[in-house]
Amino acid sequence: MTEARRVHVRISELSRRSGVPVATIKYYLREGLLPKGEATSSTQATYGATHLRRLRLIRALVEVTDAPLVKVRAALDAIDDRGMDVHDLLGSAQHAFFADAKAAKADDTGEREAEERAAALLAELGWSVTDHSPARDQLARAIATMDRLGRPVGDEMLRVYAAAARMVAEEDLRCLDPEAPREEMVEYAVAVSAVMERALMALRLLAQEDASARRFDGDRPAEGRPRRMDD
Amino acid sequence: MTEARRVHVRISELSRRSGVPVATIKYYLREGLLPKGEATSSTQATYGATHLRRLRLIRALVEVTDAPLVKVRAALDAIDDRGMDVHDLLGSAQHAFFADAKAAKADDTGEREAEERAAALLAELGWSVTDHSPARDQLARAIATMDRLGRPVGDEMLRVYAAAARMVAEEDLRCLDPEAPREEMVEYAVAVSAVMERALMALRLLAQEDASARRFDGDRPAEGRPRRMDD
Repeated sequence: MTEARRVHVRISELSRRSGVPVATIKYYLREGLLPKGEATSSTQATYGATHLRRLRLIRALVEVTDAPLVKVRAALDAIDDRGMDVHDLLGSAQHAFFADAKAAKADDTGEREAEERAAALLAELGWSVTDHSPARDQLARAIATMDRLGRPVGDEMLRVYAAAARMVAEEDLRCLDPEAPREEMVEYAVAVSAVMERALMALRLLAQEDASARRFDGDRPAEGRPRRMDD
Repeated sequence: MTEARRVHVRISELSRRSGVPVATIKYYLREGLLPKGEATSSTQATYGATHLRRLRLIRALVEVTDAPLVKVRAALDAIDDRGMDVHDLLGSAQHAFFADAKAAKADDTGEREAEERAAALLAELGWSVTDHSPARDQLARAIATMDRLGRPVGDEMLRVYAAAARMVAEEDLRCLDPEAPREEMVEYAVAVSAVMERALMALRLLAQEDASARRFDGDRPAEGRPRRMDD
């Protein structure tokens, strides 16, 4: 039995264990991000393991991802919707985090072409994904933006990115315990998606720095295939 | 010779070619994000290829990454600092984009332990990276957050993430033309870092959706090692 299982405490102790100030906890309660405690009098309530876990998740999402509260709430609503199975939930919580991608949807030819390239890539990969998802839009938007910069992304680059994404996603899923209670599993999936995304971004920049050191530092001659600029 | 080389136009034409409204261009000029044009009278100026390229970069950074203008400006300042070589610039423009990571620096034991784990991982990988960088802090912060959630990240997961990040970073660098003018190369590096980051995040979510479909959809038995759902 973990520490989390044994708690059944007042708000002050919940604050101490979670590291979240009492005033912030009260705010989350008012906003419905955190479910109400069990009332022990007209002015007091106690909080259990679920509250502590949920509070830590909110804190992680807010602090690490800088996501606005409205997004955190949408992700939590998805977790709390008992009509959804785990796969729906993974999709839904993701969509909650990518909801703004939808706002800047394809409205010109370049964007539509980029959507077609994204669709073609996913078809080539054989990935089973929903037709309309914010993640798909976001991929298309990145492709369209590189086009607009006059630096279209090659197929080879997209394939390398997809292979890397696949490796990471398999690892993410491998770490999900299929025997955990549904809510815990989904909370974990949301946390891994959001928090480890930051780790992946950071590692990419560090790897770029290392690769750049090998290639450019001190203006040593470039490795690989030297080319003449033609422009 | 590309279209970009031939422009030498008024602000209205610069607006048409870049898709950025005249009022926005004037705002960027006032804020110093875009260098002034060549004055042709006391009230008019013309703009060249550099302006168009820079404007497209600003637009890409603002629209795709939702970065605040202050960050875009810091990245552009790094590009414009002629004292830096390309490797410095890659680091510096990155740091400009990760400047907020520094604000939430290690202040407790958990964070310091996470910093040590990040350092140990980088040492194991043999990556040549600066001791103090926002990307390193961001990695440590993600590790510390998973700890606080009671779900510490295993070494194996970190290694998989690092390998995926490495693949992507090598591809990013491969697409840099070492003979391009310094400013163009760095502008491209910044664009690829920022814009393709969104593509990578989107592909990870799509790959998670696919992996989850194989494993959970319709509550079919999980592939691989079938186990009972206990919920």
